[in-house]
Amino acid sequence: MSFDQKEIFSLMYKLARLIVPDTRVENDSEGPVHIPLDRMYGPMTMRSLMKFPIGGVEERMPRPIIKAMGMVKKAAAEANKMNGMEERLCEAISKACDDVISGKLYDEEHFPLVIWQAGSGEHTNMNVNEVVCNRAIEIIGGQMGTREPVDPNEHVNLSQSPNDTFSTAVRIAVAMELQEKMYPALRTFVDLLGKKSSAWAVIVKIGRTHLMDAVPLTLGQEFSGYCQQLTNGRARLDSALDRLYELPMGGHEVGTGLNTKQGFDETCIKRIAQISCLPFVKSPNFFESLSTCDALVELHGELNTIATSLMKIVNDIRLLASGPRSGLGELILPENETVNPLVPGTVIPSQCDAISMICAQVMGNHVAVSMGACSGHFQLNAFMPMIAANVLRSITLLGDGMRSFCTNCLEGIEPHNANIEKFTKISLMLVTALSPHIGYERSAAIARAAHRNGTTLKQEAMNAGIDIDDFKKWVQINDMLQPSD
Amino acid sequence: MSFDQKEIFSLMYKLARLIVPDTRVENDSEGPVHIPLDRMYGPMTMRSLMKFPIGGVEERMPRPIIKAMGMVKKAAAEANKMNGMEERLCEAISKACDDVISGKLYDEEHFPLVIWQAGSGEHTNMNVNEVVCNRAIEIIGGQMGTREPVDPNEHVNLSQSPNDTFSTAVRIAVAMELQEKMYPALRTFVDLLGKKSSAWAVIVKIGRTHLMDAVPLTLGQEFSGYCQQLTNGRARLDSALDRLYELPMGGHEVGTGLNTKQGFDETCIKRIAQISCLPFVKSPNFFESLSTCDALVELHGELNTIATSLMKIVNDIRLLASGPRSGLGELILPENETVNPLVPGTVIPSQCDAISMICAQVMGNHVAVSMGACSGHFQLNAFMPMIAANVLRSITLLGDGMRSFCTNCLEGIEPHNANIEKFTKISLMLVTALSPHIGYERSAAIARAAHRNGTTLKQEAMNAGIDIDDFKKWVQINDMLQPSD
Amino acid sequence: MSFDQKEIFSLMYKLARLIVPDTRVENDSEGPVHIPLDRMYGPMTMRSLMKFPIGGVEERMPRPIIKAMGMVKKAAAEANKMNGMEERLCEAISKACDDVISGKLYDEEHFPLVIWQAGSGEHTNMNVNEVVCNRAIEIIGGQMGTREPVDPNEHVNLSQSPNDTFSTAVRIAVAMELQEKMYPALRTFVDLLGKKSSAWAVIVKIGRTHLMDAVPLTLGQEFSGYCQQLTNGRARLDSALDRLYELPMGGHEVGTGLNTKQGFDETCIKRIAQISCLPFVKSPNFFESLSTCDALVELHGELNTIATSLMKIVNDIRLLASGPRSGLGELILPENETVNPLVPGTVIPSQCDAISMICAQVMGNHVAVSMGACSGHFQLNAFMPMIAANVLRSITLLGDGMRSFCTNCLEGIEPHNANIEKFTKISLMLVTALSPHIGYERSAAIARAAHRNGTTLKQEAMNAGIDIDDFKKWVQINDMLQPSD
Amino acid sequence: MSFDQKEIFSLMYKLARLIVPDTRVENDSEGPVHIPLDRMYGPMTMRSLMKFPIGGVEERMPRPIIKAMGMVKKAAAEANKMNGMEERLCEAISKACDDVISGKLYDEEHFPLVIWQAGSGEHTNMNVNEVVCNRAIEIIGGQMGTREPVDPNEHVNLSQSPNDTFSTAVRIAVAMELQEKMYPALRTFVDLLGKKSSAWAVIVKIGRTHLMDAVPLTLGQEFSGYCQQLTNGRARLDSALDRLYELPMGGHEVGTGLNTKQGFDETCIKRIAQISCLPFVKSPNFFESLSTCDALVELHGELNTIATSLMKIVNDIRLLASGPRSGLGELILPENETVNPLVPGTVIPSQCDAISMICAQVMGNHVAVSMGACSGHFQLNAFMPMIAANVLRSITLLGDGMRSFCTNCLEGIEPHNANIEKFTKISLMLVTALSPHIGYERSAAIARAAHRNGTTLKQEAMNAGIDIDDFKKWVQINDMLQPSD
Repeated sequence: MSFDQKEIFSLMYKLARLIVPDTRVENDSEGPVHIPLDRMYGPMTMRSLMKFPIGGVEERMPRPIIKAMGMVKKAAAEANKMNGMEERLCEAISKACDDVISGKLYDEEHFPLVIWQAGSGEHTNMNVNEVVCNRAIEIIGGQMGTREPVDPNEHVNLSQSPNDTFSTAVRIAVAMELQEKMYPALRTFVDLLGKKSSAWAVIVKIGRTHLMDAVPLTLGQEFSGYCQQLTNGRARLDSALDRLYELPMGGHEVGTGLNTKQGFDETCIKRIAQISCLPFVKSPNFFESLSTCDALVELHGELNTIATSLMKIVNDIRLLASGPRSGLGELILPENETVNPLVPGTVIPSQCDAISMICAQVMGNHVAVSMGACSGHFQLNAFMPMIAANVLRSITLLGDGMRSFCTNCLEGIEPHNANIEKFTKISLMLVTALSPHIGYERSAAIARAAHRNGTTLKQEAMNAGIDIDDFKKWVQINDMLQPSD
Repeated sequence: MSFDQKEIFSLMYKLARLIVPDTRVENDSEGPVHIPLDRMYGPMTMRSLMKFPIGGVEERMPRPIIKAMGMVKKAAAEANKMNGMEERLCEAISKACDDVISGKLYDEEHFPLVIWQAGSGEHTNMNVNEVVCNRAIEIIGGQMGTREPVDPNEHVNLSQSPNDTFSTAVRIAVAMELQEKMYPALRTFVDLLGKKSSAWAVIVKIGRTHLMDAVPLTLGQEFSGYCQQLTNGRARLDSALDRLYELPMGGHEVGTGLNTKQGFDETCIKRIAQISCLPFVKSPNFFESLSTCDALVELHGELNTIATSLMKIVNDIRLLASGPRSGLGELILPENETVNPLVPGTVIPSQCDAISMICAQVMGNHVAVSMGACSGHFQLNAFMPMIAANVLRSITLLGDGMRSFCTNCLEGIEPHNANIEKFTKISLMLVTALSPHIGYERSAAIARAAHRNGTTLKQEAMNAGIDIDDFKKWVQINDMLQPSD
Repeated sequence: MSFDQKEIFSLMYKLARLIVPDTRVENDSEGPVHIPLDRMYGPMTMRSLMKFPIGGVEERMPRPIIKAMGMVKKAAAEANKMNGMEERLCEAISKACDDVISGKLYDEEHFPLVIWQAGSGEHTNMNVNEVVCNRAIEIIGGQMGTREPVDPNEHVNLSQSPNDTFSTAVRIAVAMELQEKMYPALRTFVDLLGKKSSAWAVIVKIGRTHLMDAVPLTLGQEFSGYCQQLTNGRARLDSALDRLYELPMGGHEVGTGLNTKQGFDETCIKRIAQISCLPFVKSPNFFESLSTCDALVELHGELNTIATSLMKIVNDIRLLASGPRSGLGELILPENETVNPLVPGTVIPSQCDAISMICAQVMGNHVAVSMGACSGHFQLNAFMPMIAANVLRSITLLGDGMRSFCTNCLEGIEPHNANIEKFTKISLMLVTALSPHIGYERSAAIARAAHRNGTTLKQEAMNAGIDIDDFKKWVQINDMLQPSD
Repeated sequence: MSFDQKEIFSLMYKLARLIVPDTRVENDSEGPVHIPLDRMYGPMTMRSLMKFPIGGVEERMPRPIIKAMGMVKKAAAEANKMNGMEERLCEAISKACDDVISGKLYDEEHFPLVIWQAGSGEHTNMNVNEVVCNRAIEIIGGQMGTREPVDPNEHVNLSQSPNDTFSTAVRIAVAMELQEKMYPALRTFVDLLGKKSSAWAVIVKIGRTHLMDAVPLTLGQEFSGYCQQLTNGRARLDSALDRLYELPMGGHEVGTGLNTKQGFDETCIKRIAQISCLPFVKSPNFFESLSTCDALVELHGELNTIATSLMKIVNDIRLLASGPRSGLGELILPENETVNPLVPGTVIPSQCDAISMICAQVMGNHVAVSMGACSGHFQLNAFMPMIAANVLRSITLLGDGMRSFCTNCLEGIEPHNANIEKFTKISLMLVTALSPHIGYERSAAIARAAHRNGTTLKQEAMNAGIDIDDFKKWVQINDMLQPSD
């Protein structure tokens, strides 16, 4: 039994809520708003919540963005201290941000807004301001909702605009998710493919071009190609990082830094680099980095390339594992679930299915990202939440999908040696090895006979009067795996 | 205070769970599995849950599909009665399905599996079998998890294959969501555009081609174009319904109907039509409808067209509302939130942002759908859950987005008459009306002078010696809104 | 020898050009322009040619659009006659248009402009005006380039704007190409699939789901699914025609019809319907049809669906024909070319390759079309030439590709009966037929033994003591192709 | 007059052809084929030509691929010399290849095959073999079509497979086109944007976020953002080159190098690097580089990013140039052509149109490329010609389009200073500068009054009793362009 004291308290609290008033009233310039009592956001968030009832919980602004917004607000609060904001407030805000950064406040549902809002992430910026404000007030010992002594705009948002905070947060979120989900999964995948490639280095099998029988290679060589694809994938991601790490923080509304103090930008960005342990730098041109999402399009282009690689790899594996009787049957997948429990060997390649569906999704996401990125105007791109959500979703799906595929499928794949040998033996391709010894015409005749009669080359070669020992000497499949001397 | 007895009980139950063992053990062919005590699914679902940890709650198999699976299972149970299944079991299953159809069991989290699973929706089919089974056992008074007297495979899944149940359920889900979300939103949108178009029928404004000043039209005419776009959108959806309503239910695994009794298919489909109140029919060719998702690609193609229409409409509105001082400023959006609270009139067009982000997403989804649909092999398309999830998400986003846009933006849009008039008055385009009276060359000279001097045509016409009354008589903007007699 | 008097003259003419001055000088508002002597276009075309050196001959405005522009100009000339244009000029213009409509003037290279120009097709409209003008002057007996007695703007373009002429021409071109290329190819394809389906109605084969062995069906049933896919494809195209046939002709620049006489629009459209023999009608709302390309997005959505269908069909065929020894080998493709001339049976499925590349291209084109269509502003969509070019290219590629595939591949495909039978015989799926007679457990044990030993069910059934006659009686594959009574 | 001796001869030759038999007959394994007398290709090419009548001249295999195939064949011939091919033949082949590399033989129409053929470019490989063979025979003094003393398969194709030659040629072609078209155009564009940015460094203008008035920046700052976008674009291309330069030459059919001599691969690749003056290297893994087009997807991903950048830039420019009276009117485009010749200032932004259409096309092409790349099987990707054609077309369109845009539009753009100043002066955004001096509330009241009355801030400030000198001192727009001290 998993007894959990904290959960009991949380339930008690919920019970309590059922017998006390459950909303509080706050006011903003548009009048009073009812807000759930146990939520830390304020009237602006509540209004957005009511005005954008688009989709359910699955459309919420992704968790990594909220966490990154916490970093941005923390860095700004600390930079504002140097710029004259009262130290006590800076510290309270900074501490409050820690609960945003850890994901705690997200998990407690203080960030309910959806992706589909103002294109600058304006509403989410307000949401974060309000929650951090109320949490900071709580830390100081004030009363939530009073805007005293911390004000969401005057303090939490000081020196910032939704444009620079949100576009900064998006880059942070993407960079962190890459480190947490994508790179580790890629590493696992590459390592596992490398292991398989080594383990199967001497298993000779038939090659296939145009899905037709071709000259042989080893199963290890085949998998070394997959391994190289994803090794390249990693290098592709690397190549996009430089531009992803360039932050527009401090550019404020249009890139000029109006309403900030000199040095605010660099102080913030250095602090963000410390908090995140990632090498973020100040963008060489705020006008570019504030008004465009080019860095995200580039990065998603690399994800798109990785998706095409993965699709190829799992399609091959799926085909190689087809059967058990009427397919290629060269690989045996671990028996996660069977198509038909009555029929042994009919294993659904469900991990392959999952990965290939993910790849198609990523390729679709790429169009949404590109489309949004090219549709910005002047100093702001109004498709940021959508773009960010797609990039983050692609990372999650690819990362989780690869990890799941490795553990639950790739790890347990075994070669079906009997089938692999059978195909190699009956292949007519071996005639290429015969030809140098008995001539093109005679070889071709033997191959045609084998094709016509459904026999092997060896059988027909003997019928044609070739000595069996000569045949064996000449047709050495292991000599067919590399250039000749 | 929103006192809610039911919720209190539910919390009590959760509390209880914290002090009693919280999992039960069930067995399947692979051995024992621990399952949360208060979940109705069985070992197969639990195994999928553990083997596909891809994304969080936002990646779950969409609710409408589960509801539609309930309809499929209910119809099958009733058809199986006629085919000899024990009546008492049929009825228990049928009743159990009602709680799936209503969404109740989904909301109570008995369907935790994600989209990223076997491409035939196999796991979700098992999930539904297990939940319906346990609920039916509960109804009969048996003990959950015993498979007695109802068995998930032997009874709930009788005469069915994941291939035909899931692909049937997907079509039902899509058709129902269209009725519930898409058509009503489109109707509202078209009506509202129609009203605006009528209300603004006599407001003459400048036309624009290539973003350059063009001959005039009325604001009502401009909005009538938008209205027609979405009226056509509705007709486009209609045109795809015929093929969407064709169900492959009863085709079983490959389309032959093996393992079903004759008439099972039609009985099921008739029943589904009754339950859903939609005109579903038996597909004219199970081999097509089981193995392809063409009907979904077609339908999403219409959604894609509607997205292009919407994108155009909201882009126009956003541009027309640009300003307040340095934009076109012909429309005034309701003040949902302002860019800068200090500066009146700077209203963020956030509902436009939301819709246009949605449109980009739908256009991306379309690529994922097309890609998945063209990648099926032989008797099964292994991208169904991904395809279905994208179609359903596009419907939700477009439906909710349009509704939200109508209520919170379109409804409250007002023309900025002063700006509209100003542009019309200073336009040089009116010279076209002058030309027939004083000749091309003289007219052009007047226009050039006005362009050079930043003056109006009227001013320059008077400078050029045209009588002001003649000018007024000749340059009648209301005569420029239709063909001449 | 293909002696061709006309060609000799044409060569003589070219020779002549080499010894006489080869350009003439014409003037427009920007000054003098040198124009190749034997080209019928004028200064505006020449300027566009010099200012848009983008790509080579392969980027030219497609021939069908020029032909359709000829129809538009012809119809307008005749309608202008009723509106007072001098009869002699109308007739000359109308006759001149005949040489545009036939494609003659296009083939003689009087329409050299590329797609990448003004987004309204403005330049092509001018190109057509100039060529028709000069040809009309020639007909009347005047001198090319003098603008006397026919003027490109005053007469050929009378009552028209690039916006309504070009967007009308695009719809005409697309509709005609559908009739000339797409529908006939689809018809051939459907017919051929129907024939194959009938011819192979009794060839029983293994089914495949998830690429794994499944219960049997007939090859005829499998192909009937393909046939249904394309039958539906035809219905899909039909469903988009209504809106495609709605022409904005007469809407002039912004949809109001300013600068036209009442009735001009309907007269033109009726005449276009006569010339093209297609049921074009006046658009119910010029503001929609002038300013959007929605009808083209819708239509291309159907082409996209057809592409997904085709991709699935040729992928299946390619897989079924894989081998000859190490693939599925159920179909034999006609030996167009072989992978390896030494190895019989290794036929490259090059027609399949061509079709599947075409499908990928069409799916890419769809994104370009959707993107362009959603990016129009106000009264004009400035992506028309690109959109039109993509729709027309998709039609050509699909039409030609399908025709080529039918003639050079599908027609000659034969079943490889030996392989088909072999797979059916060794399949473990037949155990489903055994199970009702000897029970699930005993059947499963037999299947497992066969799987383990690589033997057939029949062999293991006999080992397990089943009477061979019973086995034969029970396991009747022909009973597995439909529901049971 | 452009007298051209060579052309006269060419015409004479054509004349001659009209009076002598115009085809020759050649034989291959399938029988006799008629081939145009003046074409250098042989029977295999002719058969492909007849079997793939898909599209016209615009669908031909792109010229750069043929040129690159020339390099491949030349390098192979020279490497084969070291491997024992008769020196005289090697040299003849090598010389023949020079006429392929120069484009001469392409321009003379010896390479008529279309993209839509075998997916490995097999037919084009044969086409090149046949043409090089015949040209080599001609050089040696033999008779075309005799296969003596040079044979297309035995000599020109020696040690090669279509798979490695074609996939090598594609990479060469793409790399060369990048150098010839893309990089120079990008350089020009970046330089020009840099110049504009400097020239306009002190022109203060209104910023715009969400298309709403925002705080000011300079026109130079705005254009510096565009400049940075394309500077980044160049770095993006660079990052993909490493993997593009890795050639699979010598991997032969499946990557093992079977049928080549050791060292053949490296010798070829070194020679290709010399001929092309580009740093090509041997791929670290032939199994990856032969069987995938990942490097092309990656590269096209960068082109896609550049397209999104360009789309943003030209959309901004188009909007800034909108007007002349009813738009933003901050930029004046060079008057290439006018919407309406009667109305001065209505300039069609046709170069913007062209670029933005190109961008949409490139984004569509990207989907086709990704789709093809992920659809390969085992040792060969059967979508290569389509993928290559799209990459090359994107390069041509972007390269030519940017060049054309720079010359015919960007170069001549001028700021409309009067409009820029007007917007800045009437902007209500300046109230942000007032607020620190007179307080938020009082400032907001002044702004509201100005908004309500359509007046300037200055006017209302004076109405509110602010001293005009104070106002001027406080509201210094030049202080609003950077952070404060």
